[in-house]
Amino acid sequence: MAELRKDPLVQRWVIISDKRGKRPSDFKAAKSTEDVRPGPCAFCPGYEEGTGPETFAMRDGGEANASDWRVRVIVNKFPAVASDFPCADSAFGEGTVFGECRLPGFGSHEVVIETPDHDTPFVDLPVPHICDVLKAYQVRMKSFRKDARFKYCQVFKNRGNRAGASMTHSHSQIVALPIATHNIEDELRGAKEYYDTHGRCIFCDVVAHESAIKSRLIDENEHFVTVAPYAPRFPYETWLVPKRHSSNYETVGDDELQSLAALLKFMLQKMDVAFSQPPYNFMLQTAPLDPDNWDLPYYHWYVRLVPQLITLGGFELGSGCHINAVAPEKAAEFLRNVNIN
Amino acid sequence: MAELRKDPLVQRWVIISDKRGKRPSDFKAAKSTEDVRPGPCAFCPGYEEGTGPETFAMRDGGEANASDWRVRVIVNKFPAVASDFPCADSAFGEGTVFGECRLPGFGSHEVVIETPDHDTPFVDLPVPHICDVLKAYQVRMKSFRKDARFKYCQVFKNRGNRAGASMTHSHSQIVALPIATHNIEDELRGAKEYYDTHGRCIFCDVVAHESAIKSRLIDENEHFVTVAPYAPRFPYETWLVPKRHSSNYETVGDDELQSLAALLKFMLQKMDVAFSQPPYNFMLQTAPLDPDNWDLPYYHWYVRLVPQLITLGGFELGSGCHINAVAPEKAAEFLRNVNIN
Repeated sequence: MAELRKDPLVQRWVIISDKRGKRPSDFKAAKSTEDVRPGPCAFCPGYEEGTGPETFAMRDGGEANASDWRVRVIVNKFPAVASDFPCADSAFGEGTVFGECRLPGFGSHEVVIETPDHDTPFVDLPVPHICDVLKAYQVRMKSFRKDARFKYCQVFKNRGNRAGASMTHSHSQIVALPIATHNIEDELRGAKEYYDTHGRCIFCDVVAHESAIKSRLIDENEHFVTVAPYAPRFPYETWLVPKRHSSNYETVGDDELQSLAALLKFMLQKMDVAFSQPPYNFMLQTAPLDPDNWDLPYYHWYVRLVPQLITLGGFELGSGCHINAVAPEKAAEFLRNVNIN
Repeated sequence: MAELRKDPLVQRWVIISDKRGKRPSDFKAAKSTEDVRPGPCAFCPGYEEGTGPETFAMRDGGEANASDWRVRVIVNKFPAVASDFPCADSAFGEGTVFGECRLPGFGSHEVVIETPDHDTPFVDLPVPHICDVLKAYQVRMKSFRKDARFKYCQVFKNRGNRAGASMTHSHSQIVALPIATHNIEDELRGAKEYYDTHGRCIFCDVVAHESAIKSRLIDENEHFVTVAPYAPRFPYETWLVPKRHSSNYETVGDDELQSLAALLKFMLQKMDVAFSQPPYNFMLQTAPLDPDNWDLPYYHWYVRLVPQLITLGGFELGSGCHINAVAPEKAAEFLRNVNIN
């Protein structure tokens, strides 16, 4: 089977080409555990004074930089952007001969150390602990929202070298920027167009439609569904979509976070079994931070989970069109049936 | 230094963050030669009957499938798209509940075998031979243009496993599709907007501006400049831009192809010296195939060359914004001064 499919949200074509006949066992990614470095490392308890400043922590005591934390958020010591740059309102530089636009590298780049235990991967944390991590994202996002200089916040996790991680110790990252990035702008535009045409949120329609037809539904629990998206760019790409409409992750309640933590752990367990602990990324997609993007009827936050099983090439780089050797219906059927014990 | 820069063509932000202090020697990519497999292989002379059908070849004799070719174009045996699917004009499938759009996997996926010699990498081919390869792209593109079912054609090369190549024997690929892909649509839109505002082609302005200020100019010859683009997504990403305006690669004359071949070889030699034979991709960006996109005043074909030196992570996947640890001015200065002796 080969098909061209257009993503209904961002109007981007992908080529679904399982004519190439790859089975799940053909995806032999480098194991995320192959590049594990033994601890202790800079993220381990006892090394608090050496990290970037702590911006948030969950601990039973109360003293900052004490070692009794469960989850600890720090400023990245090697940040891509930093708050010691000015936040300029306008471009600067050599002029705007061909519309160049540059801003100082103002922003925030934080690391969420997800556990004090150097050797415990995220997937092995108990559900309440994963829930704490998800809460930490909210706390930081709410804090960035109070500062009008920040327009967008990207939460993401890289696990394994091949997924971009340079540290073994389980962690995720939060980057807050003074601009809204390409992807969120594309998603907002597409979602708005859909809403203007149909009068409904496209994600709410996805949840209803996929729950009804079931061919791309992987799992669900009280508050979330996991689906293989209609036009996925990556094999076994999985979206965790909340059943309740909200554009902003900050609005999510404790019971929903618990539900997300449980389903995220379950999906990661399935990925580990299916692909032998593959490198992976997950990304939290949510509306921008400015008041204009609060409580949008047309956008809907969600989590994208991508096991890193393939290498992109010049076709994807040049065309922006990905070739995906696994149809989402096949991916969903496979992941639905992965037995995690 | 950390900066946010917006690409003037597609309005996409990147983060330039050389605060992370990487020097060229810190980019230790897997060598493209590390995954070399000894010949002979299916692309070698003598194995012509076993490949997909030959669609074009340059040989001194004239007999199809004879082994005396210099450059040979064949249908990919494991194609992403194929001409045995129908070319449908409209979507099919389960309905359009949320705007799903799917087409049969019609298209063409060809391989350009760049040399009969299994062990000679592209960079080591003589300039006239590289020129033959560039001509072969043109011949195939002109052929696709005659068939109204094809709307876009992406030429690309993957060298090395980490750049998506599965074969060692030097080759590039041509995919022709019944749709225009995301990137070319973005580029056309951006270029049109620029033209409507300024009355000039943005690429012509880039050539003039970069040649004047010189800080991002790497090299030039009679018909081409190589520049580090203003807002590159990848470290040491390089564009080869023709000085003469044309939207369509098919219009390029022999003297220009000769000039491109020489500069492309020169840049690849520099990359090999600078980064120890890195995996790389190059992509030919040109206007779509339909008559409406012929001889556009606002678009300008060019070649993007990307050495694969980094691993992307969840930030790039989620936000669409790349973090690039090398400012293009630094990259240009470095590449300008690489001595290939």
